[in-house]
Amino acid sequence: MPETPSHPRSPAADPRPPVRAGEPLRVTIWNEYLHEVESDVVRAVYPDGIHMALKRALEERLPALVRTATLREPDHGLAQDVLDTTDVLLWWGHKAHGEVRDDVAERVHHAVLAGMGLVVLHSGHYSKPFTRLMGTHASLTWREADEKERLWNLQPGHPMLEGVPAFVELPQEEMYGERFDVPDPDELLMISWFQGGEVFRSLMTWRRGHGRVVYFRPGHETYPTYHDPNVQRIVANAAAYAAARLRRDDAASPNVAAHEPVPNPGKDPIL
Amino acid sequence: MPETPSHPRSPAADPRPPVRAGEPLRVTIWNEYLHEVESDVVRAVYPDGIHMALKRALEERLPALVRTATLREPDHGLAQDVLDTTDVLLWWGHKAHGEVRDDVAERVHHAVLAGMGLVVLHSGHYSKPFTRLMGTHASLTWREADEKERLWNLQPGHPMLEGVPAFVELPQEEMYGERFDVPDPDELLMISWFQGGEVFRSLMTWRRGHGRVVYFRPGHETYPTYHDPNVQRIVANAAAYAAARLRRDDAASPNVAAHEPVPNPGKDPIL
Amino acid sequence: MPETPSHPRSPAADPRPPVRAGEPLRVTIWNEYLHEVESDVVRAVYPDGIHMALKRALEERLPALVRTATLREPDHGLAQDVLDTTDVLLWWGHKAHGEVRDDVAERVHHAVLAGMGLVVLHSGHYSKPFTRLMGTHASLTWREADEKERLWNLQPGHPMLEGVPAFVELPQEEMYGERFDVPDPDELLMISWFQGGEVFRSLMTWRRGHGRVVYFRPGHETYPTYHDPNVQRIVANAAAYAAARLRRDDAASPNVAAHEPVPNPGKDPIL
Amino acid sequence: MPETPSHPRSPAADPRPPVRAGEPLRVTIWNEYLHEVESDVVRAVYPDGIHMALKRALEERLPALVRTATLREPDHGLAQDVLDTTDVLLWWGHKAHGEVRDDVAERVHHAVLAGMGLVVLHSGHYSKPFTRLMGTHASLTWREADEKERLWNLQPGHPMLEGVPAFVELPQEEMYGERFDVPDPDELLMISWFQGGEVFRSLMTWRRGHGRVVYFRPGHETYPTYHDPNVQRIVANAAAYAAARLRRDDAASPNVAAHEPVPNPGKDPIL
Repeated sequence: MPETPSHPRSPAADPRPPVRAGEPLRVTIWNEYLHEVESDVVRAVYPDGIHMALKRALEERLPALVRTATLREPDHGLAQDVLDTTDVLLWWGHKAHGEVRDDVAERVHHAVLAGMGLVVLHSGHYSKPFTRLMGTHASLTWREADEKERLWNLQPGHPMLEGVPAFVELPQEEMYGERFDVPDPDELLMISWFQGGEVFRSLMTWRRGHGRVVYFRPGHETYPTYHDPNVQRIVANAAAYAAARLRRDDAASPNVAAHEPVPNPGKDPIL
Repeated sequence: MPETPSHPRSPAADPRPPVRAGEPLRVTIWNEYLHEVESDVVRAVYPDGIHMALKRALEERLPALVRTATLREPDHGLAQDVLDTTDVLLWWGHKAHGEVRDDVAERVHHAVLAGMGLVVLHSGHYSKPFTRLMGTHASLTWREADEKERLWNLQPGHPMLEGVPAFVELPQEEMYGERFDVPDPDELLMISWFQGGEVFRSLMTWRRGHGRVVYFRPGHETYPTYHDPNVQRIVANAAAYAAARLRRDDAASPNVAAHEPVPNPGKDPIL
Repeated sequence: MPETPSHPRSPAADPRPPVRAGEPLRVTIWNEYLHEVESDVVRAVYPDGIHMALKRALEERLPALVRTATLREPDHGLAQDVLDTTDVLLWWGHKAHGEVRDDVAERVHHAVLAGMGLVVLHSGHYSKPFTRLMGTHASLTWREADEKERLWNLQPGHPMLEGVPAFVELPQEEMYGERFDVPDPDELLMISWFQGGEVFRSLMTWRRGHGRVVYFRPGHETYPTYHDPNVQRIVANAAAYAAARLRRDDAASPNVAAHEPVPNPGKDPIL
Repeated sequence: MPETPSHPRSPAADPRPPVRAGEPLRVTIWNEYLHEVESDVVRAVYPDGIHMALKRALEERLPALVRTATLREPDHGLAQDVLDTTDVLLWWGHKAHGEVRDDVAERVHHAVLAGMGLVVLHSGHYSKPFTRLMGTHASLTWREADEKERLWNLQPGHPMLEGVPAFVELPQEEMYGERFDVPDPDELLMISWFQGGEVFRSLMTWRRGHGRVVYFRPGHETYPTYHDPNVQRIVANAAAYAAARLRRDDAASPNVAAHEPVPNPGKDPIL
């Protein structure tokens, strides 16, 4: 009969309260914010930037404290203390993925592994944080032809699709087509039909570390997609769903003592 | 009624034959090959290196052409043409993950996305190719105490477990314990029980790009694990299962023409 | 250019409010309730039945209205109106699975597909509702030997594991061992280590229809498992997590009109 | 230090050879075979039945011994010894699912759990074997309007899509639309675009017990779908992929002895 080492039956429950216990959600919206500055067409759709349109949409729909951050700010607006106080980060980028500093991309990547939620929007599929979290190219096919997109709701009972009808129709959007080079998702929630003949997995989630990553396809800068009520609802639901419930850095691999008798408990490993 | 563009009903079948059609499997075994050189204890177990023990095991069990590569060779033995002619790569590393050049790690990473199989062994969980493919820390708990490991077979009908009994027992192994910081696998095939009280997901697969990644836990350098017939069988099955069936670089996102009529087929996108 | 049929861009949002909007959770605990009546040993552990121990535990931990139902009641206590007003059903059964009427089992099965949550406990793995939802035998290996069980927490950031430490230790439990014949779960959250050498996937979830099914392993009737604070916490978290967010019967396959022009919209199908 | 019970380090490898070792695949094609008898339109497309068209397609493409079975035969052509000698069963049914005897449906269900592959075609989504294996309604939306279907290939490196181009176009098919009420698949391999505006997950796999289940959407009886070379290729690949690698009935839950010392190895359980 083994002699059981004397230790408590279970470790103490983690004393840290859950991140969001009754508090408003702390959201940070990151936007590249170049198209809106450089193009009259885009500025006409989003006069103060995609981030501000999303900020208003979230504030209307969630008990949330919403901040914004953009590429041209110092540290791209994403200093460590910003991430440390962010429950969920939204990411919109397109033409300047390469300008995002590697150390900031890594900071975001590691914040997600430590529990921060990340909602990646549209052309953010090629962003550094997303591709590093996926481990794939995240390539796809695309076309801009003012065509119709219809997003089908595969899981009406899922929290991210609360209040969302059987499908959402957008009269004009950029097309993204399969094959989308990402890992199989933990959850596939919407599939898009495009007028020009393609399909796309448009709402997906992946757990990475302690964090939840969401990808939501629509949102090309020349169309008023983020003014659509259903799109706003899905983005708000996604922010609430992905928000951190735990923040803990588990990068290290600790050498641990045995819970039960082992042959050689004090052995010196060869390193 | 829409006017259908005139194009073939389906594209031509890909004319490239499947990679492995009736040919022997082309396996490359990568080993760090430092412990065996530096430590008498390890050399006693694997006199000519872990890679050579694995090479013999695979050659006995598979119609395979097996090459080896090690850290100290130029390009770590992994020049582009080696990867281009490798159907599946095995990876064993431990103490010198940081010495693997970033460009070689990326070369391996991209070869997997293009279809090459990758079987990561034991302490290779912390290697650059594996962590880049997973997008996580791949951290875990560990202990070296000469303890027993028993690996339970969850899917006896899976090709990787063909001929493998209900469990495999290893009298002495290093312990790896949960939480193992990896994405949920596509397939969970074995779970380890350890004498000291931990459990571990020990045989898992993930598709990344066109490639298949396998992780198989056992194989600490001070124990004769790779001489065990069941372990050899699983490694051989894993090599055959993960081997490339397609080699194609899909890093790019092409702009494509519509298959059906769209409102504005010649539109100039804002870039 | 296709002529678009005139219909709204998206259907109206489902006007039904989410099931649980700010209301207490409506929980029904089903217990076979035979062992506690027939055996002094079991009654000493659960004097008024496992269902009453669980009821008290849930009421302490959740804003919930908790009812109970047992095998010997008319309709096993599960009349249609009970299910219709149940957000999540807990199920404990062991020796009399065969006595559960087929029509009641089907009623439970269909309630889950329509959105009701189901938390299956311990020997409930062999119950009619669970095996019908899984489509498999749900077989396993077992042993009653007063041995230790240690459940490892694989996802501390998951809502079901909020407040739960890295592992939970139960000094005496019945052993359940792999291979557990169930479909691969959507989420694998805990794995058990047993003193006698086995492992088991002990906390898993599957979506079926609009409903969420949870299986949680511990809870043999001769041990005080449901008095353990961590076990109570996990059961309470599971009830909250699995609770219905939507109730809708989607058994039928409607013939639907096209959203876009099709060649033969009024065609009479051969039936 | 625990005293280890004296038993072999691992059980003997299963002596039974893998089912298919070098032998031709044993395929049985089940067809309801009513439409072809009753309707001139259908008979014009499949003069000797869908099963015979599929039989010829498989024989051309695989080293396979192909048998057929139909509803009106005794036991629907599916006596136990037929299933016992079938590596993979194809299933086409539509209007007479209710006529399939419950005991035969259960025989098929249990054969799959014991390892037999099952490829369910088109309207077979509502068949007894499929719905029992899924545990869901398997409902969907549908329309027969002679519309175009384009199936997108999500995993060109998967064995079931070997030789299949980026998409497959069928000029006329019945439409099946989401939401398809099935469990999340283990693998999602093709998604259909329909001319009328819907999408559908058209090629999926699920492991159930030791068996592999495949669902492949196209194949309405009034269209020449099974004469399409790409469709034939996918069906043939699916048959090879799903074929049994193990045949073993694991319906029972054995009481097992401990591998390691336990407190009370001879305990009499309360039953």
